[in-house]
Amino acid sequence: MVYELYYWPSIQGRGEFVRLALEEADASYIDVARKAGSGAGEARIMRWLTGASVTRPPFAPPFLKAGRLVIGQTANILMFLGGRHGLAPQAQAGRLWTNGLQLTVTDFVAEVHDTHHPIASSLYYEDQKKEARRCTAEFLKHRLPKFLGYFENVMARNSRSDRYLVGASLSYVDLSLFQVIAGLTYAFPRAMAKAARRHRRLFSLHERVRERPRIAAYLASARRIPFNQDGIFRHYAELDGA
Amino acid sequence: MVYELYYWPSIQGRGEFVRLALEEADASYIDVARKAGSGAGEARIMRWLTGASVTRPPFAPPFLKAGRLVIGQTANILMFLGGRHGLAPQAQAGRLWTNGLQLTVTDFVAEVHDTHHPIASSLYYEDQKKEARRCTAEFLKHRLPKFLGYFENVMARNSRSDRYLVGASLSYVDLSLFQVIAGLTYAFPRAMAKAARRHRRLFSLHERVRERPRIAAYLASARRIPFNQDGIFRHYAELDGA
Repeated sequence: MVYELYYWPSIQGRGEFVRLALEEADASYIDVARKAGSGAGEARIMRWLTGASVTRPPFAPPFLKAGRLVIGQTANILMFLGGRHGLAPQAQAGRLWTNGLQLTVTDFVAEVHDTHHPIASSLYYEDQKKEARRCTAEFLKHRLPKFLGYFENVMARNSRSDRYLVGASLSYVDLSLFQVIAGLTYAFPRAMAKAARRHRRLFSLHERVRERPRIAAYLASARRIPFNQDGIFRHYAELDGA
Repeated sequence: MVYELYYWPSIQGRGEFVRLALEEADASYIDVARKAGSGAGEARIMRWLTGASVTRPPFAPPFLKAGRLVIGQTANILMFLGGRHGLAPQAQAGRLWTNGLQLTVTDFVAEVHDTHHPIASSLYYEDQKKEARRCTAEFLKHRLPKFLGYFENVMARNSRSDRYLVGASLSYVDLSLFQVIAGLTYAFPRAMAKAARRHRRLFSLHERVRERPRIAAYLASARRIPFNQDGIFRHYAELDGA
């Protein structure tokens, strides 16, 4: 089966968590909106969101078409792909644990996004710059260490291996945390340089995932959209911790 | 099996979505922190979050203990309970659709919370009142209609019944949307009075769920914590739409 991934064509955004799983799984997929090109790509997405004949419309991209299934919400897509491509445990306890971790990644990512858009996504950064500054200061002081500390602790307590979040092999949560560490390092290089010292397992995981053959090939390809100032992870020097 | 629900004892919060599913399922459960009482209850929660012997610690409440399983994240708990108690479809397509809808409820609820805490949860409302006013105005103008319109549309397009979100019978997403409508009506009575006219299916769903025998009994009992100014849904008259 050839999957169809529907996501905005010009940013990594939440679609990137799905791309990383598809790439690591060596799955065949079409990144629909990128293939169609700007404008046409967005129209392809909108057809599923608002088309009159769609009985189960997704709320927003990313969504994945897998045969007759159309699956919305990043964590939901990853749970589906994880089960099909050996990127999650098979037993119920492991599946639930993995999904719970991914939902905590989801919360983390939403808070990262809100650092530069605390008032509203509908307003420009420039129109909420003062608030972003205050929000980011609180985020870097309280939330970043809380989330990173949590995942570091999960790795430390993993009874099978402290090289992965779950069990003794790679899961989709490891891929997502690679992306989070990469994104945060782009957005907040100063704050993350400090954080690296206290979260060695997590930063080693980032390195190991980056060097996996399929991920390394993906990152070096044109399929990987570079980080930019329109995505979730944005670098505004004035927000990075002193 | 007697479930153990771990959630803060003085608010509905995210725990309420789980309580509603447990009540509708007529499941046996202990609301651990409420039973233990304030202080002791919080200590019972913290033991799971930070205890040295816990190998798979949840990130935050709510979490549910089901035999040897400890399940974190609201949507994850509901997916588990939905499968066990007939509150979700059995087939994969239906399960994924239901979970995707619940994750959209999760996003919605997070945005509601942020209306009164746009800068940081660690700061008092009084210290972000001006920002809350701006954030809420944008929320009521753009996001509230978008989310309500989406779920109204999902009901309208449900090929089996426009009385439920999914298929021809009640699922845990219906219970969660009951709670969201109830909470929003408490928080923003003026804005929601207007919204009711345009989202009749959703508001009827709220009424129907409220009148279900087990839910009605629960709502009339001392087990239902009233809405208050410490939860997700808070009523600040100055934030409600004019």
